[in-house]
Amino acid sequence: MLINCAVYEGGRKLADIPKEEIHFHLGKPGRFVWVALRDAAPEELDEMREEFDLHELAVEDALHGDQRPKVEEYGNCLFVVLRTVELDGDDLAVGEVDVFVGADYVLTVRKRTKQGFSGVRGRCEREPQLLKEGPGYVLYVIMDTVVDRYFPVIDELEAELEKIEARIFEGEPQRRNIEDLYVLKRKLMVLRHAVAPLHEAAGKLYGGRVPEIVAGTQDYFRDVYDHLFRINQSIDSLREMLTTAISVNLSLITVHENETMKRLAAYAALLAIPTMIAGIYGMNFDVMPELRWAYGYPATMALIFAADGYLFYRFRKSGWL
Amino acid sequence: MLINCAVYEGGRKLADIPKEEIHFHLGKPGRFVWVALRDAAPEELDEMREEFDLHELAVEDALHGDQRPKVEEYGNCLFVVLRTVELDGDDLAVGEVDVFVGADYVLTVRKRTKQGFSGVRGRCEREPQLLKEGPGYVLYVIMDTVVDRYFPVIDELEAELEKIEARIFEGEPQRRNIEDLYVLKRKLMVLRHAVAPLHEAAGKLYGGRVPEIVAGTQDYFRDVYDHLFRINQSIDSLREMLTTAISVNLSLITVHENETMKRLAAYAALLAIPTMIAGIYGMNFDVMPELRWAYGYPATMALIFAADGYLFYRFRKSGWL
Amino acid sequence: MLINCAVYEGGRKLADIPKEEIHFHLGKPGRFVWVALRDAAPEELDEMREEFDLHELAVEDALHGDQRPKVEEYGNCLFVVLRTVELDGDDLAVGEVDVFVGADYVLTVRKRTKQGFSGVRGRCEREPQLLKEGPGYVLYVIMDTVVDRYFPVIDELEAELEKIEARIFEGEPQRRNIEDLYVLKRKLMVLRHAVAPLHEAAGKLYGGRVPEIVAGTQDYFRDVYDHLFRINQSIDSLREMLTTAISVNLSLITVHENETMKRLAAYAALLAIPTMIAGIYGMNFDVMPELRWAYGYPATMALIFAADGYLFYRFRKSGWL
Amino acid sequence: MLINCAVYEGGRKLADIPKEEIHFHLGKPGRFVWVALRDAAPEELDEMREEFDLHELAVEDALHGDQRPKVEEYGNCLFVVLRTVELDGDDLAVGEVDVFVGADYVLTVRKRTKQGFSGVRGRCEREPQLLKEGPGYVLYVIMDTVVDRYFPVIDELEAELEKIEARIFEGEPQRRNIEDLYVLKRKLMVLRHAVAPLHEAAGKLYGGRVPEIVAGTQDYFRDVYDHLFRINQSIDSLREMLTTAISVNLSLITVHENETMKRLAAYAALLAIPTMIAGIYGMNFDVMPELRWAYGYPATMALIFAADGYLFYRFRKSGWL
Amino acid sequence: MLINCAVYEGGRKLADIPKEEIHFHLGKPGRFVWVALRDAAPEELDEMREEFDLHELAVEDALHGDQRPKVEEYGNCLFVVLRTVELDGDDLAVGEVDVFVGADYVLTVRKRTKQGFSGVRGRCEREPQLLKEGPGYVLYVIMDTVVDRYFPVIDELEAELEKIEARIFEGEPQRRNIEDLYVLKRKLMVLRHAVAPLHEAAGKLYGGRVPEIVAGTQDYFRDVYDHLFRINQSIDSLREMLTTAISVNLSLITVHENETMKRLAAYAALLAIPTMIAGIYGMNFDVMPELRWAYGYPATMALIFAADGYLFYRFRKSGWL
Repeated sequence: MLINCAVYEGGRKLADIPKEEIHFHLGKPGRFVWVALRDAAPEELDEMREEFDLHELAVEDALHGDQRPKVEEYGNCLFVVLRTVELDGDDLAVGEVDVFVGADYVLTVRKRTKQGFSGVRGRCEREPQLLKEGPGYVLYVIMDTVVDRYFPVIDELEAELEKIEARIFEGEPQRRNIEDLYVLKRKLMVLRHAVAPLHEAAGKLYGGRVPEIVAGTQDYFRDVYDHLFRINQSIDSLREMLTTAISVNLSLITVHENETMKRLAAYAALLAIPTMIAGIYGMNFDVMPELRWAYGYPATMALIFAADGYLFYRFRKSGWL
Repeated sequence: MLINCAVYEGGRKLADIPKEEIHFHLGKPGRFVWVALRDAAPEELDEMREEFDLHELAVEDALHGDQRPKVEEYGNCLFVVLRTVELDGDDLAVGEVDVFVGADYVLTVRKRTKQGFSGVRGRCEREPQLLKEGPGYVLYVIMDTVVDRYFPVIDELEAELEKIEARIFEGEPQRRNIEDLYVLKRKLMVLRHAVAPLHEAAGKLYGGRVPEIVAGTQDYFRDVYDHLFRINQSIDSLREMLTTAISVNLSLITVHENETMKRLAAYAALLAIPTMIAGIYGMNFDVMPELRWAYGYPATMALIFAADGYLFYRFRKSGWL
Repeated sequence: MLINCAVYEGGRKLADIPKEEIHFHLGKPGRFVWVALRDAAPEELDEMREEFDLHELAVEDALHGDQRPKVEEYGNCLFVVLRTVELDGDDLAVGEVDVFVGADYVLTVRKRTKQGFSGVRGRCEREPQLLKEGPGYVLYVIMDTVVDRYFPVIDELEAELEKIEARIFEGEPQRRNIEDLYVLKRKLMVLRHAVAPLHEAAGKLYGGRVPEIVAGTQDYFRDVYDHLFRINQSIDSLREMLTTAISVNLSLITVHENETMKRLAAYAALLAIPTMIAGIYGMNFDVMPELRWAYGYPATMALIFAADGYLFYRFRKSGWL
Repeated sequence: MLINCAVYEGGRKLADIPKEEIHFHLGKPGRFVWVALRDAAPEELDEMREEFDLHELAVEDALHGDQRPKVEEYGNCLFVVLRTVELDGDDLAVGEVDVFVGADYVLTVRKRTKQGFSGVRGRCEREPQLLKEGPGYVLYVIMDTVVDRYFPVIDELEAELEKIEARIFEGEPQRRNIEDLYVLKRKLMVLRHAVAPLHEAAGKLYGGRVPEIVAGTQDYFRDVYDHLFRINQSIDSLREMLTTAISVNLSLITVHENETMKRLAAYAALLAIPTMIAGIYGMNFDVMPELRWAYGYPATMALIFAADGYLFYRFRKSGWL
Repeated sequence: MLINCAVYEGGRKLADIPKEEIHFHLGKPGRFVWVALRDAAPEELDEMREEFDLHELAVEDALHGDQRPKVEEYGNCLFVVLRTVELDGDDLAVGEVDVFVGADYVLTVRKRTKQGFSGVRGRCEREPQLLKEGPGYVLYVIMDTVVDRYFPVIDELEAELEKIEARIFEGEPQRRNIEDLYVLKRKLMVLRHAVAPLHEAAGKLYGGRVPEIVAGTQDYFRDVYDHLFRINQSIDSLREMLTTAISVNLSLITVHENETMKRLAAYAALLAIPTMIAGIYGMNFDVMPELRWAYGYPATMALIFAADGYLFYRFRKSGWL
C-alpha cells in the first residue's frame, strides 16, 4: 500500500506527487523522491523496481521479508534491511523496514511494524539544512528512529530481569521464576538477532571507504553505530546475568531443598519421640513399676512434652524450624 | 551413474549428447557442457577427469566423499563441495554434492542425496537471460538449491525444541525430555557441520578478488552467503537455547524433587500423627482415666481425625498437597 | 555549572578568565584555554559549542550523558567519553566525564561524579615541562586520573570475592553467599562496561596513526592503555573466579545436603531401634516368657541402650554424626 | 638409530648409501638424500647437523622432543614437528616425528611412535612422477600419513562417546559413565594438542607466500590442511557433545534420584498404613466394640490388605512403583 | 641494591666496574654494560635513568612494579617486564623482572623473586660466540630463563589436578576436593596472568618488523615464543579439565547422595517390617487365635527374621546395601 510519495529539493518538500510522476523528478541535481510503502504487494514493488531500476535480488528480498538486517550495495543503490522490535504486551513484535536509497530517491517498504514512521518525515522536514544532504540523511533518520526504538525494549527486558531477581532472592523458588528466565532469554535472542547484524553492517557506513550516498553524513552514521554498540553491550550483559541468574537460582533451589529437608526432619523427630516413649510403656512386661504408679501416666506425658519442648527449642535455635 | 549430459549456448539448451561427444563442445565461446553424475563409479570419474582435465586431488575428494564443505580453485577449475541435509523421518540424512566448474563445463556428482536436482536444470532453463552468464550461474543455482533445503531442516529443529519446551514447562520432568534435548543437539551439530564451513567458503565468491568464473554473478553469491549467514545465526540461537533449556530443565527437576519431597512428608505426617496418638493410648499404665471413659475411644478417633484434618487443610493451603 | 576557566601558555597558567573572554585567547600558538563544567545546562553547552565550534552530535552526546566510553574525532576536535566508577558504600556510583580537546582548548564536562577533579589541574600545573605539550597532555592527565580510580574499585571487588570465598569454605552454605556472588557479578558488569570500551578506544591514541593533538604524548597514552589492559585482565579473572565460585558453591551445598541427610538418618535410626524393640514386647502373645521374667523390663531397656549406644559409636566413627 | 639413508634423482631411488657418503650427493640439481632416524642419539643428530648445516635451535628441539607441532623456517631449511597419536589399548600413545627439509635433503627423526613409516617410502617410490617434485613432496607424504592416522583415533573416540551415551540413556546412572566421560575428555585434549597447532601451522604451506621447497606441491598441502580442518571440527563437536553429555547425565541422575525417592516413599506408605491401623487397635480403651467382635481381627486384616492393595494399585498407575 | 655491574666486549667480560664508571663504557661499538639491581631503591633507579637516559614512564613502571608482562619500545630502548612464578610450598610466589635493553647496555631490576639470576650471567659467558650478538642475546637468555621456570610450575599444577582426580574417582566425595579444585583454579589464574600477556608481547620480537636490538637473535626469540605457546596451551587444557572436573565431581556427589539415600531406605525397611508385624500382634482383639498358640511368639519372631533376611538378601543383590 502506498503511504506517501513526495519530491524534495534543497532540503524542502516541493510537493506530494502521484507515483506515476516519479520519473519526471529523477536525475535532477539536488532533487529527490521519497516513496513509502507498507506491506507492499508484488506489483507495487515491481513498479518501483522499474521506476528506480532496483536490483532484482534486493526487490525479491524486500518482497519475501524475514531477511537478516544488512547493508548492501547494488551498484549506486544502497539496500538496507532493518528489523524493528517493539513491545507488544508481554511479547516482542518483530517487523521489518527495507530501504532503497539512490542518488535521487528513497524508497521505504515496511512490514509488520506497529508504530508508524510518519515522525521520520516530520523530523526530516524540520531540519532543512540537514535534509539538503539528500537521501543519505533520510536513511540516517530512518535508521536512527528504528535504533532508538530498541532502547525501551532493552529497558523492559532489564526491568523484567530485575523483577525475576527480586522474586528469586526474596520469595520461595518457584517454577515461574525458571520459566520467566527462559522466556526472557528467548526475547533477548529476538532482540539480538535484530541488533547484532545491523551493528556489524552499520560499520560500513562510516570511516574508511563508504558508499557515496552517505559520504556527507558519516558522523551521523557513526552515532547510529555507537547506539547499536551500546545496545549490543546491554544485550551481552543481560545474557551473562541471565546465565548467572539461572545457576544462582539452581543453587537457591538446592539450598531451599536442604532447608525443607531439615524442617521435615525436625517435625518427624517431634513425632517420633512420643511414639518411641509410648511404645516403651506399651510393653507387656509383668514387672514394670512405672505402670503401677498413680502418676505414671501424667509423668510420662510430662516427659514427652519436655523432650519435645527441648527439641523444639533446639531446632528453633539452630534455624531448622 | 550418468544422469544427464547436455550442451548449452547463449542461455539455451542445444541438445542432450552422449558423453563421448563432450570434447566436441569444449572450448567454444559461449557454449558449455553440463554433466550430472550420481554415486559415480571410479571409472566414470576417471573418464570425466580426462575429458575436463580435472585435478587429481579434487577427483579423489569427489570419489571418497565425506569432505568438508569447501570452495577450492585448481587453476581455472572451481571445485565446490556441498553437504545436503534432509529430513528423514526423525533423523537427518546427510548427502554430498560435488561441483566442478570450468569456463566451458559444469560437472556435478551427488552422493546419498534423497531429493533429486532435476529442478535445478529446469530453473536454469527457465531463465535464459541469466543462464547466458554461463557455468557460474549454474553453480549459483545449485548452491542456492542446496542452501534453500537447509531451511525446512532448521524449521523442523526449531519446532522440535518448541515441543520439548512445552513438555518441560507443562508436564512432569521426564527422562524423555532430557534424551530429546540431547538428540536435538546431535542433529544441530550435523547441520552446523554442513553450514558453517560453507558459509565461510561462500565468502570467497563475492567481494574483493573472486574466481573469474563467478565474476559476473557476484551479487547472486552474496545472496547465498546471506542465506547461510541467517541459517548460521539460527543454529547459534538454537545452540544457546538448547544449553539454556538443559540447565532450566535441571532446575525444574530439582524443583519437582522439592515438591515431591514436601508431598511425601505431608502424607507421612498424616500417618504419623494417628500412630503417635494410638501409641499413647496403647500404654499400659494402671491409671489412665481416658481409657476408662465410655466415649474414650470415639473421642480419641475424633481427635485423630481432627488433627489430620487440620494438618491436611494447612498442607493444602501452603501448597504441599 | 562553570567550575573553572583558565588560560595556559608554555606550560604555565596565565590567568583565570571569565568565559566571555575565551575567544580572545583562541588561535594563539602555544596558548590554550581549559574550561571545566559540572552537570552542564543545555545553554552552557550551547555557548561552548559556539565558542569552540564543537560538532553538534558530540555536544548532544555530552548533554544526554549515558554514552559508552569512546574516543571520537570530529575534524580537529577529539571527543572523549569516560565513565567514572566510584565506591559508594556497598554500591558502585557511575558518573561520566566528557572531554573535548582541540588545538587550543580543553573542555571537560562531568556528570554524577562524586570525587572532584581539582587534583588534575594541580598535577598539570606542577609539571610545566609536560603541560607545555598542550591540550593532549591535559587529556592524558584526565584519563590517567579516571583510570587510576578504577584500581580501588577492582581491589574492593577482589576483597569481596575473598570474603565470600572464606564464608563458602568455612561456614555453612547460606543464601547470603549466593546472593552476594550475584551482586558481585552485577558490580563487575558495571565496571566492565566502563573499562572494556575505553580500553579498546584508548588503542587509537598511540602507535600507528594517531590524532594530531596527542601525537607528542603517545608514550603516555600507551601507559594509560596498559593500565586499562591490566584492569581488564583483573575483571576477566574475577568473572572466571566468580563463575567457578558459583559452581563450587553448588557442589558444597549438595555435599552439605548429603551430610545433613546422613545425620538425620542416623538420628532416625536411634529412635527407630527402641520403637521396634518396644513394639515386639508390646505383642499380646499368651506365651512370651520374657514378659514374665522379673528383670525382663530392665533387661530390655538395657538392650535398647546397648543397641543405640553401639549405633551411636558407629555413626560417630564414620562421620555421620 | 639410523633406519634408512638413500639417494633419489628424478623421482627414482638411485641407491642406499652409508651416511658417510651423504655429502657427495648434496648440491646436485634434481638429486636429494633422504635419511630416517629413530630415537636418535645426540651424536647422530650432531652429525646430521653438520652434514646438512641445520640450525642449532631446531636440532635442540628435535633432541629434546615434546615440542608443539609446528612449521618453522630456518633459512632454506624447513623444520616441521608432527605429533603422532595412536591407539594403544584403551589409551592414546603420543609420539613425535621431526622433519628437516632442505633443497637437497629430507631428514626425519621419530620418537616414541609405534607404527613404522616404511609405508611412506614405498608410497613415494610408487609415484615417481610426483616424487620428482623433490623433498617437498616427501614432506607432504609424511604429513599426510601422520594426519591420516588421526582418523581412526577420532573414530574410536566417537565410538566411545556413543557407547557411553547408550549406557547413560538405557541403564542406570553409574559412576562409571561419569568417569568414562572424564577419561574421554582427557583423550580428546591429547588429540587436540596434536591437531590444533598443526592445523594452524599447515596454513603456512599453501596460498599466499609459501616456503620455496613446497612451492610446487601447494595443492597437496591444501589437502592436508583440509583433512586437519575436518579432524579439528570433529574434535570440537566431540568436546561440545561431551559437555552436553555431562550435564545431561547430571539431569538424569537427578531424575533417577527423584524416581528412587518416590519408590521408597511408596514402600514406606505400604508399611506405615498397617502400622497405623494396628496401633489404633492396640489402644487399651475399655470400650472398643470392634475388639469384642468375633471377626474383628480378620476384618481388620482385610482392611489393612485392602488399603495397601488400593495404594499399591495407585502407585503402580502413577508410575511410582 | 646493586648486585652486579660489568662490561662486555666481543662476547667476553672485560671487567667488573663500579657504577660510577658506567658512562666511560657507553657508546663504544661492540661493548656493552650489564647492570643488575634487586629491589631497587628510587634513588638507584634515578641514577640509572640518568646514566642510560631511560624514559621516565618506564622507570616509574619499574619502580612501582606489579606491571603486566610486556615488551615496549621507548625510542632505542627496549623495556621488557617479565613476571616470575615460583613454587613456594603449596603457594605460588610471584616476582617481577624488568629489563631495559639499549644498544650498549642491559639493566635488569628484579623484585620479590626467590631464585637468583646468577645462572643467567654464567650461561651467557659460556657462549661468547652468541654473547657477541650483544644486549639482544642477554635479553634472550633472561627471558628464556624466566620462561623455563614456568615449566616446573605447570608440572606441579598438573600433578595436583591428577591427585585431586584420583581422590574424586576413588574415595568419597569430600569438601576437600572441591576446595582444592578451587585453589588450583586460583593458582592457574596467577600463572596465566604471567604467561598470556608475555606470549602476546613476545610475538613482537621475531618475524616482520622487530626492534633493532633483537634483529640478530630473532630465531632465539621465536624459540621463547614457542615455549610460551606450549605453556599457554597447557594452561588452557588445565582450565578446561578443571571445569570438567568440577562438574564431574558434582555429578559424583549427586550419585553418592543417591546411593546413600538407597542405603538408608534399605535400613529403614529392615526396621519398619518388624515394627509393623509387632504392631499387628499388639492389637487387643479378643479373638486372635495366633496369640493363644503356644509357639505363636517364636513363630512370629521367625517370620520377622525371615522377612528381614529376605529383604536383606534382595537389597544386597541389587546393590543397595
